[in-house]
Amino acid sequence: MKIAQAGHAELQVRDLEASKRFFTETMGLFVTEEDSTSVYLRAWQDWEHHTLVLTKGDTSGLVHLGWRVEDPESLDQFARRFEEMGLTYTWVEAGTEWGQGRALRFSSVSGVPMELYWEIEKYRASDPELVSALPSFPQKYPTKGMAPRRFDHFNVMANDVAREQAWLTQVMGIKHRYYVEGADGVRRGSWLSISNLSHDIAVMRNHSGSGARLHHIGYYVDSPDELLRAATMAVEHGGKIEWGPGKHGTSGATFLYFFEPSGHRIEVWTGGMLIFAPDWEPIRWSQETEVVGFDMWGSKAPETYLRYGTEIVKATGAGAIA
Amino acid sequence: MKIAQAGHAELQVRDLEASKRFFTETMGLFVTEEDSTSVYLRAWQDWEHHTLVLTKGDTSGLVHLGWRVEDPESLDQFARRFEEMGLTYTWVEAGTEWGQGRALRFSSVSGVPMELYWEIEKYRASDPELVSALPSFPQKYPTKGMAPRRFDHFNVMANDVAREQAWLTQVMGIKHRYYVEGADGVRRGSWLSISNLSHDIAVMRNHSGSGARLHHIGYYVDSPDELLRAATMAVEHGGKIEWGPGKHGTSGATFLYFFEPSGHRIEVWTGGMLIFAPDWEPIRWSQETEVVGFDMWGSKAPETYLRYGTEIVKATGAGAIA
Amino acid sequence: MKIAQAGHAELQVRDLEASKRFFTETMGLFVTEEDSTSVYLRAWQDWEHHTLVLTKGDTSGLVHLGWRVEDPESLDQFARRFEEMGLTYTWVEAGTEWGQGRALRFSSVSGVPMELYWEIEKYRASDPELVSALPSFPQKYPTKGMAPRRFDHFNVMANDVAREQAWLTQVMGIKHRYYVEGADGVRRGSWLSISNLSHDIAVMRNHSGSGARLHHIGYYVDSPDELLRAATMAVEHGGKIEWGPGKHGTSGATFLYFFEPSGHRIEVWTGGMLIFAPDWEPIRWSQETEVVGFDMWGSKAPETYLRYGTEIVKATGAGAIA
Amino acid sequence: MKIAQAGHAELQVRDLEASKRFFTETMGLFVTEEDSTSVYLRAWQDWEHHTLVLTKGDTSGLVHLGWRVEDPESLDQFARRFEEMGLTYTWVEAGTEWGQGRALRFSSVSGVPMELYWEIEKYRASDPELVSALPSFPQKYPTKGMAPRRFDHFNVMANDVAREQAWLTQVMGIKHRYYVEGADGVRRGSWLSISNLSHDIAVMRNHSGSGARLHHIGYYVDSPDELLRAATMAVEHGGKIEWGPGKHGTSGATFLYFFEPSGHRIEVWTGGMLIFAPDWEPIRWSQETEVVGFDMWGSKAPETYLRYGTEIVKATGAGAIA
Repeated sequence: MKIAQAGHAELQVRDLEASKRFFTETMGLFVTEEDSTSVYLRAWQDWEHHTLVLTKGDTSGLVHLGWRVEDPESLDQFARRFEEMGLTYTWVEAGTEWGQGRALRFSSVSGVPMELYWEIEKYRASDPELVSALPSFPQKYPTKGMAPRRFDHFNVMANDVAREQAWLTQVMGIKHRYYVEGADGVRRGSWLSISNLSHDIAVMRNHSGSGARLHHIGYYVDSPDELLRAATMAVEHGGKIEWGPGKHGTSGATFLYFFEPSGHRIEVWTGGMLIFAPDWEPIRWSQETEVVGFDMWGSKAPETYLRYGTEIVKATGAGAIA
Repeated sequence: MKIAQAGHAELQVRDLEASKRFFTETMGLFVTEEDSTSVYLRAWQDWEHHTLVLTKGDTSGLVHLGWRVEDPESLDQFARRFEEMGLTYTWVEAGTEWGQGRALRFSSVSGVPMELYWEIEKYRASDPELVSALPSFPQKYPTKGMAPRRFDHFNVMANDVAREQAWLTQVMGIKHRYYVEGADGVRRGSWLSISNLSHDIAVMRNHSGSGARLHHIGYYVDSPDELLRAATMAVEHGGKIEWGPGKHGTSGATFLYFFEPSGHRIEVWTGGMLIFAPDWEPIRWSQETEVVGFDMWGSKAPETYLRYGTEIVKATGAGAIA
Repeated sequence: MKIAQAGHAELQVRDLEASKRFFTETMGLFVTEEDSTSVYLRAWQDWEHHTLVLTKGDTSGLVHLGWRVEDPESLDQFARRFEEMGLTYTWVEAGTEWGQGRALRFSSVSGVPMELYWEIEKYRASDPELVSALPSFPQKYPTKGMAPRRFDHFNVMANDVAREQAWLTQVMGIKHRYYVEGADGVRRGSWLSISNLSHDIAVMRNHSGSGARLHHIGYYVDSPDELLRAATMAVEHGGKIEWGPGKHGTSGATFLYFFEPSGHRIEVWTGGMLIFAPDWEPIRWSQETEVVGFDMWGSKAPETYLRYGTEIVKATGAGAIA
Repeated sequence: MKIAQAGHAELQVRDLEASKRFFTETMGLFVTEEDSTSVYLRAWQDWEHHTLVLTKGDTSGLVHLGWRVEDPESLDQFARRFEEMGLTYTWVEAGTEWGQGRALRFSSVSGVPMELYWEIEKYRASDPELVSALPSFPQKYPTKGMAPRRFDHFNVMANDVAREQAWLTQVMGIKHRYYVEGADGVRRGSWLSISNLSHDIAVMRNHSGSGARLHHIGYYVDSPDELLRAATMAVEHGGKIEWGPGKHGTSGATFLYFFEPSGHRIEVWTGGMLIFAPDWEPIRWSQETEVVGFDMWGSKAPETYLRYGTEIVKATGAGAIA
């Protein structure tokens, strides 16, 4: 019973047209399937059917975060664990989310909606314009937009970071990699991963105290130079830069945060460390090192970064829990 | 009487549709004006109406290379110099080339067709989709293709390099910057500039002995990383890479050569040295240093690079001499 | 019983002084410990005591490749497995390799010498000149040389690639990720990983038929731009470039191969794909796609790349099997 | 009578040892000559004997900015012009500044100390460790520090920007390229060049009203990626980052500002536009576009950037006016 990777996010958006245009034209993601209320997207080397689902709604918010499990058995095993722990969950039938098998839906202890799934269509371009001669490319290398290589990670806000992190580690098996702790002993943020990435999911303190929020989802671009180009593209093509380019001291990754037209915060990032040691000890960042931890080049996180996230929605979209 | 800058090239192409598609979709140039036989193109920060004109024809070849002069008087002054020297020239009327005033047409001693011009429309986007909020951007920063910043240089082949270089320097005032010379004393290549660029025009030996040819035109991308991305884009989007990425030892610039669909060789390059010294002495590269001069990382120039260039055409296009 | 990561290589070198100088001054690795016959090296963000050991010898060759296991129990479990399979192994006592606990030494089916270990000192700079203010940095970010971030992978040659790959997968549990297969059905190369890297170890066909060889070890630099700088550094600082910069079509990584002064081939590389799917199917490259598989930009592998590797030595150095 | 290029700056420093260490170890400049009170420095592809002189003093300040003229005659011609205008000047004898012929010293209308010179030793490495096999490299490509390719530009503060710019243009012939103007009609900054660079010298408003100051000198690195590495190097190797990495909307160049140990502000920058048009019209930036003009990615200039510059010193160093 194990989680294999962070797979995708479903975001409800208040302006589907504008968001779709931004994600395809400016960010350079590709549409796998769509109808008038949903758009399924992936980056050019994402192998799964989708890593982002946009669902039309009255407000913008997070519908769910999707995790792929290590093997088919893990789904029922996790369901049993949830039962034993008295946790609520539901099953989403195969095909409810296009291209995907049945999924186990539940919420983390702080209220972040998640799902586990095993079956997922593998993407391979069929449109002759997109078919690549390279077997390692599910489609041709793109010529448009920021063109991230792949989906990378989730980042959520919670009132009690330590509690959420403990839950993710103990219940879901996601390892604790590094964290920021105030002089008051209060956890400001925790970064966790199940893979060799420095984090598959992060939990940051909601300084506004309003509970669980989506802080951002992150896509991976191939180089710092591409990230700078992405920033320049954002300026005049519908992205509102919030912070960056900067360099996280914690992970060593170069970052850029911007808002897409419906108000979700998106990160593109690149580089930094991978973690291979099986006996990795979570790295502690104190209040003194927090500043360089956030941006080692010295810029400060804007207030919005500390207080604003997209709400959790009880969605009516593709992946909705009845 | 002085030349100010290398301005543009007019290329006859045997497949206008395919070439236009490649230059716009893959290279990321922009169309200023076009009709069924001509397409006027520029890079996103080219300030002039065009830096490349594609003209439909039965074969692919060079129609002319355009140089802008330093002031309006220089045109007639150059005409007088040509008369005194007994050189043939013709005047092309204003508007023959769209967006451009009258031009003085002539051929170099080796037979490379050239023109001098002063009046040229300055480009400033009017399409709201393209208008930039930045006064220094004639249009928005692009999100598509290799997206070079600007036109950079010309490169021609000649049987007698030393003679062509002497003519360019003495008649046109273009300074000699560096050259390759064989142990036999025969000049293999010369690079010249009127600006601070390492070269605005180069002359390389036609190892096939077939006389004047266009070797390539060069556009400038902003970083080595962009150049590598351009190579990856070329692979599956209609560009046939001939050589590179590599790094010229001579100029220090990173290079990539590829053929566009009608057979013209195009270079995108970046970086390397600028030349500021008013008493610059041309740098000599011997046969021993020639290899690192061409690619300091050690790859060898392919045979096509030494022998193939596009022919000189007596064109019927926009800029034709009657 | 599981392997966690590719850890380090011990290389015998015929010119220890020259090799040490190259690895520290030009490559920018750091010495952890050394004496007159051995130098222990690591990249700036390598967390272990060493990722490369140079041992003085009459010839240059591979002493062993070191793999770290997932937990302390795995060592004895692997020993039992080897016994059950009738494979020979020996124990190297703790401290024989500096900074390291006892290790299980054995050879792969093709004769590649390997070891498994669990205990290893974690590096944290104590020299005030090197101590970083960033908890995520085991030492300050360097200002010298190619400065790779970390050790990346092994690459060995074998006469029978398919057999060696099967052994690595079945005995050591290292997953098969992609491979090249001739029209004759003969395996040309296989790439395998236990981590999310596209490969921790590769096996390539020894076209000279001389059996097991070390092809190269690979270090990871942070960007394509850094890799290009590394190439320029190599040119005049003791590295002999063999091939590259190029871009592997298989992994998508940008590569550079060069020889260090004692004749070992070293790769610095960056980028490309990570593999997250638990049901990953090995990607097949045919003879038709092999060319773009090796370098998608189109350069061909030099003959030396296909035929030359460093010999396997029965070493007398730190990690020698008695 | 014409200026050819911005050549060098002489800076008085209160801690010569610390500044020398920073400029050589962290920035990666090279010492041409030095004694106990002066250090002459150049970047690896600077062709002149020096582009930076550090002179020991009680305070840190600007001694002079050096401009090379187009030909030997220009020196006396400028002296005559100054006489006709009633401007004070002095001659500095050949050899006073090492490696340099006689120089004409004067101050701009705002009080910025400058010199014009013609004769200057050309640098070519003689130390075998530094001699390059590439004729275009005055020394080997470096392996240490930020390693800018060349000196780039000057930036000074003045109370009345428009007046200083007019003087530089009319008296020294340096063309006006772009400027920022408040809604109140007050000039905030002007950028000028004699070369194809977007600026060889800039004048920015001293918001503290304290008159002429050195704002910074700028060196050119080869790529945005190198600039980001420079920022990371600065963090733990003696540079105090003030602002950046960011991207000037005006020039399009990527920038980083930091303070060296004696308090001078240094910029490393890269990319952006060159200016070729002989009829270039200065580009106006209004208060509305000023923000993106300073950093198109949206960060704001810190207060120190608007108010702090190094004082003008009546120096006692190598280049002192008796």
